[in-house]
Amino acid sequence: MDLEIKKDLTSNWFKLLQNAICNDISVLENKKINFKSTTWKKNHKKDEGGGEFRILQDGKVFDKVGVNYSKVYGKFPKKFQKKILGASKDPRFWASGISVVMHMKNPIIPAMHFNTRFISTTQQWFGGGMDVTPSKKDDLEKKDIHNTLKNMCNKHNKNYYKRYKKWCDQYFYLPHRKERRGIGGIFFDYKNDNFEKDFEFIRDLGITFQILFNKIIRNKINKKWTIKDKEIQYIKRGRYTEFNLLYDRGTKFGLQTGGNVEGILMSLPPLAKWK
Amino acid sequence: MDLEIKKDLTSNWFKLLQNAICNDISVLENKKINFKSTTWKKNHKKDEGGGEFRILQDGKVFDKVGVNYSKVYGKFPKKFQKKILGASKDPRFWASGISVVMHMKNPIIPAMHFNTRFISTTQQWFGGGMDVTPSKKDDLEKKDIHNTLKNMCNKHNKNYYKRYKKWCDQYFYLPHRKERRGIGGIFFDYKNDNFEKDFEFIRDLGITFQILFNKIIRNKINKKWTIKDKEIQYIKRGRYTEFNLLYDRGTKFGLQTGGNVEGILMSLPPLAKWK
Repeated sequence: MDLEIKKDLTSNWFKLLQNAICNDISVLENKKINFKSTTWKKNHKKDEGGGEFRILQDGKVFDKVGVNYSKVYGKFPKKFQKKILGASKDPRFWASGISVVMHMKNPIIPAMHFNTRFISTTQQWFGGGMDVTPSKKDDLEKKDIHNTLKNMCNKHNKNYYKRYKKWCDQYFYLPHRKERRGIGGIFFDYKNDNFEKDFEFIRDLGITFQILFNKIIRNKINKKWTIKDKEIQYIKRGRYTEFNLLYDRGTKFGLQTGGNVEGILMSLPPLAKWK
Repeated sequence: MDLEIKKDLTSNWFKLLQNAICNDISVLENKKINFKSTTWKKNHKKDEGGGEFRILQDGKVFDKVGVNYSKVYGKFPKKFQKKILGASKDPRFWASGISVVMHMKNPIIPAMHFNTRFISTTQQWFGGGMDVTPSKKDDLEKKDIHNTLKNMCNKHNKNYYKRYKKWCDQYFYLPHRKERRGIGGIFFDYKNDNFEKDFEFIRDLGITFQILFNKIIRNKINKKWTIKDKEIQYIKRGRYTEFNLLYDRGTKFGLQTGGNVEGILMSLPPLAKWK
């Protein structure tokens, strides 16, 4: 398949999924509150693509949710070239993706993160994953999330779940705290086995995330919570902030390569506490 | 002067200053709320020193203030040796210092940060500084702070203020936001002109910080503020968090070399917001 077709297919999917997820969120909020949408260009002098991020805050269900779409291209700055697969000799790249971060009002509903992307340098690959960060323990919910992900993975390859779950646990880890960010999920990068099959997996993950967040939220939307639950959530969000600013590669990479700051830091919680 | 005497003199001074500053803070709080003190050891198997950090939260004047003293020694891990002046061939080090971060309840009083330290590898040097982060503009206060620092610096060397102010502006900068953390102050590192004179400067800076924070706080302690002022302060604290987790060398270094996490992250605000 021609590379340009792959780029079109993937970026169109990410855009479509952004709309679908935003629509679900609006329904969950009873359409009483709207997303604030920001479109941005990577470069104002020449066309290097850009994106649209949508943020909804202070809803009945969501304290803050961001749904970020981007399609950017150009040349990596010299000092990054060597850090990027397939870019050490040729700095040109193309990248498109979607990322979602949900910080819930009800502290017994976990925070959720999802991201998928397609990158092209002299090589092409998919990356992404989804992971869940509760501030209140819920073993049944944890089991359901992992089973859902496992079943989805198994439809594609019997090795994926184990491999990508482990990758997730290793990635979303705060070494200074010796603790995981949350209860994990799946995470993968440099995925380039077979475009058609990989892309099927990427779409399946997007749809699975949609099903999961709707299910998790609807299950607990009316459940009562206490001020103490909320305080624990604020502290957990402090840890979330520590991870994203200290360790997250995407955050660092975005900030260093001049991405849109508000879009990149959309993942930060609306309010975090440190004791 | 014998190196062991220099170590004793400097670490004793930092400890003394910790007590003096904590005492001032207690007086400002009318002694109605106490510091929570934590002593820690760097290594539980063998003696590598440790420290004591004191945190006071939810006071009438301070939302959170941390006063951290430490004296640690041992060997740098191999991968850090080359990053440290004088340690590339010999990993042994000794370091002592004091750091203070004040997050105020009244949002028209600026956040303040102060730190001084003495490090010994095969070389010895002082580092430190103080800087101020208002969330509400106050040109008169800014001028007074910089004049006080300038006058203090000039007593020691006519070149210090200009050089150290610039260093401060360059260090406390958020490139992704293209903004400074605050209104600056002075900052310096690798200072090893002459131990006696350098140590005099270090002590003078400690005393100047004491005078300044008392003056700044007392001047505004009873001034009225609005919920809007407080919201702006929370957003400013988000920026403060971004700087400390994304860029601060001390934070990174401490976390990577297994320092005390609570002590290192004491600089984080009690509550931060991202819009």
